[in-house]
Amino acid sequence: MDHADQALKRRQTMMKAALQAYVDRTNAGDAEGLVALFAPDAVIEDPIGTPAKTGKEIPVWFADSVAFDTWITPVVPARGSHAHEAALVFDVEFTPPEGPRLRIRSLDVCTFDDAGLITHLKAYWGPDDIEPA
Amino acid sequence: MDHADQALKRRQTMMKAALQAYVDRTNAGDAEGLVALFAPDAVIEDPIGTPAKTGKEIPVWFADSVAFDTWITPVVPARGSHAHEAALVFDVEFTPPEGPRLRIRSLDVCTFDDAGLITHLKAYWGPDDIEPA
Repeated sequence: MDHADQALKRRQTMMKAALQAYVDRTNAGDAEGLVALFAPDAVIEDPIGTPAKTGKEIPVWFADSVAFDTWITPVVPARGSHAHEAALVFDVEFTPPEGPRLRIRSLDVCTFDDAGLITHLKAYWGPDDIEPA
Repeated sequence: MDHADQALKRRQTMMKAALQAYVDRTNAGDAEGLVALFAPDAVIEDPIGTPAKTGKEIPVWFADSVAFDTWITPVVPARGSHAHEAALVFDVEFTPPEGPRLRIRSLDVCTFDDAGLITHLKAYWGPDDIEPA
């Protein structure tokens, strides 16, 4: 295995570990830990087609996620790539302030920097992908 | 449901039908039918991090796919979004010229034009996501 292959393999491992940490910290209600997975200039589009969240909106987003008792269940193994992107496929349950509890069939694709921090998260889920939990 | 919501719902249906057609035409060995799902200026990155395929490379790509006896098995329901993007999560088996038969845990995110044709396909799979079939 040459140097480029080794670097590629290391990056896959790093990206998938970060995605697993995203699951674990969500389910632990660890909002600060979630924010720590993101680069300072990160952009979150969740879902794609709604206004992007950046800067100070990101801690607020994850505080809400914890307040809504969010629980992520990965449904297949995460996917890597041959670059700085990887994907997490999951069902997510949460209870919004207006209730009732909901389940979304979702999917996050993330771009990472060289330090393994998420610079861009795009969530794929549409109006057909949400149902009562 | 207002006009924008109706348009959004229609687009989800159109995108998911196109993704199902991508599965069905792959499994039927229908290379021409696969090419017909793409806009003339479409870009295919499969996997992300390798050179993009465009123009006349796309029919060659799908002719190879058929020649390699490619079979796609979706593993969870497709995901839409609140814009012109949707995602297909699948395992894919194929037999490359150098053999043996392989299985990739893959995931395609696609952007669509207003006619429902794919303008951009990005495939998420890395070196950890491939194994003997």
